[in-house]
Amino acid sequence: MANTLSNEKEVPAFGWAARDSSGILSPFHFSRRIIICSTVHFIVYFDHIGQMEIVEHEIVGEVIKIGSNVKKFKIGDIAGVGPICGSCGKCSHCSKSWENSCPKTILTYNGHDYDGSITYGGYSNKIVVNENYAIIMPKGLPLEGAAPLLCAGLTVYSPMIHHGLCQSGQHLGIVGLGGLGHVAVKFAKAFNMKVTVISTSPGKKEEALERLGADSFLLINDQQQLKEAKDTMDGIIDTASGPHSLHPLIDMLKTCGKLILVGASITPPVLPYMPLMLGRKIIAGSAAGGMKESQDMINFAAKHNITADIEVIPMDYVNTAFERLAKNDVKYRFVIDVANTLNVSHID
Amino acid sequence: MANTLSNEKEVPAFGWAARDSSGILSPFHFSRRIIICSTVHFIVYFDHIGQMEIVEHEIVGEVIKIGSNVKKFKIGDIAGVGPICGSCGKCSHCSKSWENSCPKTILTYNGHDYDGSITYGGYSNKIVVNENYAIIMPKGLPLEGAAPLLCAGLTVYSPMIHHGLCQSGQHLGIVGLGGLGHVAVKFAKAFNMKVTVISTSPGKKEEALERLGADSFLLINDQQQLKEAKDTMDGIIDTASGPHSLHPLIDMLKTCGKLILVGASITPPVLPYMPLMLGRKIIAGSAAGGMKESQDMINFAAKHNITADIEVIPMDYVNTAFERLAKNDVKYRFVIDVANTLNVSHID
Repeated sequence: MANTLSNEKEVPAFGWAARDSSGILSPFHFSRRIIICSTVHFIVYFDHIGQMEIVEHEIVGEVIKIGSNVKKFKIGDIAGVGPICGSCGKCSHCSKSWENSCPKTILTYNGHDYDGSITYGGYSNKIVVNENYAIIMPKGLPLEGAAPLLCAGLTVYSPMIHHGLCQSGQHLGIVGLGGLGHVAVKFAKAFNMKVTVISTSPGKKEEALERLGADSFLLINDQQQLKEAKDTMDGIIDTASGPHSLHPLIDMLKTCGKLILVGASITPPVLPYMPLMLGRKIIAGSAAGGMKESQDMINFAAKHNITADIEVIPMDYVNTAFERLAKNDVKYRFVIDVANTLNVSHID
Repeated sequence: MANTLSNEKEVPAFGWAARDSSGILSPFHFSRRIIICSTVHFIVYFDHIGQMEIVEHEIVGEVIKIGSNVKKFKIGDIAGVGPICGSCGKCSHCSKSWENSCPKTILTYNGHDYDGSITYGGYSNKIVVNENYAIIMPKGLPLEGAAPLLCAGLTVYSPMIHHGLCQSGQHLGIVGLGGLGHVAVKFAKAFNMKVTVISTSPGKKEEALERLGADSFLLINDQQQLKEAKDTMDGIIDTASGPHSLHPLIDMLKTCGKLILVGASITPPVLPYMPLMLGRKIIAGSAAGGMKESQDMINFAAKHNITADIEVIPMDYVNTAFERLAKNDVKYRFVIDVANTLNVSHID
């Protein structure tokens, strides 16, 4: 197998995919997109892990082939691919490295790649990516725990940086202690912030304080705790996706405080209008981040030994994992060991 | 009449006030608060104007007496008093000149002054104010048009500065062309911004474009215009207080754009959750501003000859003016000429 791509047109790949409305995944042969000769593409081979959510977009693997113009990677490097794998590269968004906001952004799964082919995500043995949309995985960071940072970590890190909620001594509230929330606690503590985990579940108190190192824990339905928390926080990262009122959260913010929504809520809440006005507060939304932020985030994570808490599973456990996800039965992310558990006899 | 306050304990005053639930105003004798000897207080005498809203808090007048420690003003200076006339002076808010957010802020009307007495607002011949809560009215600015800037002007100027929506070449949307909106257009044009007035009233187009100098006019219920305005604005100042959806406004913002709510809405709108997240946009609230911002605002207004558009009325027209306000029949602010129309025979 040659290690450069110049003479190839397609890359045969093998993985698992859902191909009907049942949502059940099964083994799947397909082709990764046509390689444009001499451009900056490389293939990540999953010799280590792919990380799983409803759809797969937190991917780490070894670079096995590179295009002749690739500068950032060499064969054998470990690369990461997050929720996007392409954008126009020319617009005002791309020029600021806000590739995730480019109107031509290409999602890593169920998107349309440069050549029009479907992007198949990461439940497979190979992926073909333009090097500008892959990040260099720092040496020393355990990859199975680092993979979930590529979207979950970025989703909380990006608004912390963008809105200045990363200063030592600031008080940050984090709503929800799941895949996003537990990583947010780790980043905030690495920034030397005071962290309060805000939750509806008393059972998460010990986890928040003892294991993750949060400074305090607040039960959102405890009126006395709400009263004491009033006007105390510089910012709140709200990772909850279930319906919930924003009013008590706005009340916890100091004047000019910032509430950042990162959990996709199906039921839009009512805007707490007057508290927002009188306290000169803001509500911001944020989703993932750009490529520069991605690289900065993973470098910061490596420096502070931050990884997500995970459960490594084999490829053929994926459907069971989905069932467990639906019951919220995972702490906090499943990571599929693709390389060691995908049936290699099917690979070309 | 002595010009220093050191031996006086109370200041007799005369004005108009509503004293029963009818809301009808009538002449009223009262005392302004006890003067604390040797502190920094002065009396503003309304030899010119007081400006009227539902309650009076945009006040301009001549300084007629000063406390012995007053540094900022001398007898004969023209001073302005906005919506607040006191605060603790020591807290974290006051130290940043966010006096309007101090928990002990004293409103200029219906508030409780330092000595516990009621603050009576500005429909009267005198007001006693700590100099830290009065601003120096710049020479050359017509006072009757400048008075409404002390709250209306501040309300739109403050968030423009605070959120960086004051850069040459930025595109600013302004929702509503009333007392706040028409002043916002003037400030934005002075900042050399591109201004789009957003309204439900086609009749305001000519006013916006021809007289106020806005660059464009957008009818919020015109789907074609909404479509064309998508992703075009750096920020929006929303002065509308009636119920309205924020969704089309969020859609008009570029990535990272800012929607600033300054009109007090009785019916809180639904938060446009997903558009906020996907565009990394923010919704901020803002109400009035601090003392430093007030002085900066009026200095900026003087430099650029910005005043509010007003109708000057006599004191005894106030009840008719309220009726007209209820019918939105004023362009854009009533200003009461207190000094020339209050019955001076009643003044001590």
